[in-house]
Amino acid sequence: MTESQSGDAGVVRVDVALAPLQVPKASDVLAEELRELILRGDYPEGTALPPERELVTQTGMSRTTVREAMRILEVQGLVSVRTGRAGGAFARRPGRDSIANSVNLLIRGQQIRIPALLETREAIEPSCAQLAARYRTDADLARIEKAQEAMSAEEGTIAEFLRANIDWHVAVALASHNELLAGFMTALSDTIYTATDNHGFLDQEVRRATIHAHKVITSAIRDRDPDAALRRMSRHVHAYAASILEVEEREAVDVEEV
Amino acid sequence: MTESQSGDAGVVRVDVALAPLQVPKASDVLAEELRELILRGDYPEGTALPPERELVTQTGMSRTTVREAMRILEVQGLVSVRTGRAGGAFARRPGRDSIANSVNLLIRGQQIRIPALLETREAIEPSCAQLAARYRTDADLARIEKAQEAMSAEEGTIAEFLRANIDWHVAVALASHNELLAGFMTALSDTIYTATDNHGFLDQEVRRATIHAHKVITSAIRDRDPDAALRRMSRHVHAYAASILEVEEREAVDVEEV
Repeated sequence: MTESQSGDAGVVRVDVALAPLQVPKASDVLAEELRELILRGDYPEGTALPPERELVTQTGMSRTTVREAMRILEVQGLVSVRTGRAGGAFARRPGRDSIANSVNLLIRGQQIRIPALLETREAIEPSCAQLAARYRTDADLARIEKAQEAMSAEEGTIAEFLRANIDWHVAVALASHNELLAGFMTALSDTIYTATDNHGFLDQEVRRATIHAHKVITSAIRDRDPDAALRRMSRHVHAYAASILEVEEREAVDVEEV
Repeated sequence: MTESQSGDAGVVRVDVALAPLQVPKASDVLAEELRELILRGDYPEGTALPPERELVTQTGMSRTTVREAMRILEVQGLVSVRTGRAGGAFARRPGRDSIANSVNLLIRGQQIRIPALLETREAIEPSCAQLAARYRTDADLARIEKAQEAMSAEEGTIAEFLRANIDWHVAVALASHNELLAGFMTALSDTIYTATDNHGFLDQEVRRATIHAHKVITSAIRDRDPDAALRRMSRHVHAYAASILEVEEREAVDVEEV
């Protein structure tokens, strides 16, 4: 800090260097405030937030700022906006879908490859099965068995088989009664389904083995046997991953040989 | 569909009922368009998106719409906006932080309890250790060992110990070279750290056991022994969870007895 005496009027000036400042945006500040109120339950799920003009009056912020804040909360899954006569912004608690969204963005943005997706699934699913055997309700079991039956239907197409396959895996994850694991699995299932839709690996043998594996895992969950559920799911996802990777590799080689 | 012939001019009117329509918002349409371009790599990471006025000209949308779209992408971690002379919106690939964000929102929004967090960790971490033993680089190992040393420091406070503890777990997750598992773990670590800051469970015995467990896991990762890393991490996170839950339960009982 240096001092310099200016000639006239005895004004003393000092040199103080200011660093570049980050000013938070008004809409971020408002979104943050409302986010806390929603997460703390001050606006319980489904209740209306104050209308736009009221928020403008209360906060002294512009209409544009208030709207921008609402859009931010909507993107984060914290409000749902309905238009029309009974419209407005309603509080939501972010659920599995918002995790699924950001997992999908990560997978696409980082171009995460199928082997990494399968690794992640191998990490998560055995625990889902174990917890499902511990905590499943009768309704959970019914959902799992319904997907199991859909897969075993003889006349089904490959697409129907794959869809029922995912339904079964998601049903097991939901039966774990662990929202986080269920959220991760939902996100992974959709992506693995899309990523493996070349179907090359799905010959009759893999299909039969899958149905059998699901059957024995389903009965471990029915019998509330966590250890068997864990062990059998572990073996199943590992074998399924191996049959996908085998085809992936074979095709990769084919491409190089052309 | 009923026909009714109007009297004059021979105009034929038919009754067709329109269902309520969902019109996508302009800003969502533009955000979606730009999102695809970023995820596909048409705007590689760090490159500037067209300036606001250019997007207005190109798309025929209003300034407000363009700004709103940018805010949506910013919240989703797909652009970073810099102000000032060299400012603008720059493409980003969403990474671990965006998963961590949405996991945190889910945990807070659904009021997910500590036992569920610990279950999730027990599911994910053993696989992280297994993959770390398989794929770790020398730099990964150095990071793990540094956190290991910080934990063993005799003079550290409990807060420092817990911080180094998390650093170690995150270092192991990063060494798995699986962005998804690393993203999940980063998100969980922060929340478990905050949720367990009552420290009641962290007596000298737990501290010593933790340091020892980390030491043997670190050496399995150093020796590239995936099976040992998996088995030891599994045992460690299970024991650590048990000591947290024991204190939780004890305190819950205390509260009821008052």
